Amino acid sequence: MIIITTGNGKGKTTSAIGQIIRALGHNHKVCLIQLFKGDMFYGEQNILSKFSNLDFFSFAKEHPFLIKTKPINETKKECENALKKLKEILSLKRKYDLIVLEEFNIALRDNFIDLKEFLDLIKELNKMSDIFITGRKAPQDLIDIADLVTKMEEVKHPYSKGIPAKKGIEF
Amino acid sequence: MIIITTGNGKGKTTSAIGQIIRALGHNHKVCLIQLFKGDMFYGEQNILSKFSNLDFFSFAKEHPFLIKTKPINETKKECENALKKLKEILSLKRKYDLIVLEEFNIALRDNFIDLKEFLDLIKELNKMSDIFITGRKAPQDLIDIADLVTKMEEVKHPYSKGIPAKKGIEF
Repeated sequence: MIIITTGNGKGKTTSAIGQIIRALGHNHKVCLIQLFKGDMFYGEQNILSKFSNLDFFSFAKEHPFLIKTKPINETKKECENALKKLKEILSLKRKYDLIVLEEFNIALRDNFIDLKEFLDLIKELNKMSDIFITGRKAPQDLIDIADLVTKMEEVKHPYSKGIPAKKGIEF
Repeated sequence: MIIITTGNGKGKTTSAIGQIIRALGHNHKVCLIQLFKGDMFYGEQNILSKFSNLDFFSFAKEHPFLIKTKPINETKKECENALKKLKEILSLKRKYDLIVLEEFNIALRDNFIDLKEFLDLIKELNKMSDIFITGRKAPQDLIDIADLVTKMEEVKHPYSKGIPAKKGIEF
């Protein structure tokens, strides 16, 4: 099954974490590959790092649209390394029940990852594993091959009232 | 902060679990009160039950619209017991960083819980704790007092193609 969580609303990352916890609760084997999550401490890392059934990788910690000093080519290369990791999983026939690809929709939107190459890879991986992909603006071609797509729509958000991110809620 | 996760799409419960895991990762104290979650085994229960920082309560395991033999009055009483638990937390000034109220929007929609009474209670509890409420069809009066509201919109769902719920994904 290919699952996409997209849209501007809050809940994409927390939903991915919940999905991971649900799978781990069934003793499933899970792979999490994160993009664009900086060195800021996220509470969930403290918990997720303790599960031996979870393989966790992080690439391209900074997004060049947020960290202006970050060269775009460097980010592109780091995203390609994330793709290499996926190819490795495929070629080694590593059996994960669930592969979670955090913020990959952003990397596709910004052409850091080639869409055609990604779609081909995902379709192959999906023969062995469920795939869960998050990030705003999922490309239509990805939505077309997905089984389950949810759009998280922002109805109300305190950021727009100038309230800063809160520990335990936003990170 | 009062946070609402509503809409027909998948991701409300997993997002609540992710939020709980994030808070627990900061050693925050969390209370989870679930409604309408039957005795089906959800993978997350296996993990969540291991955290001493999480108090977990479950009321009204069956929703009478799904289990037709369940008398509505009984469900109403069980939902009122959930409300009593919240009143107890308030009166004992029990300090939770986060209180998660799973499927309470459904209980409000179906008048199993009095909206006015609930709103008053939530506003008081919110002075001590962040409150996270899930379920389809959040009432507008609740949205009005919330700080952060996300609507999960179903773009595509395999149930509509007749594919059954999958272990590790839907439960």
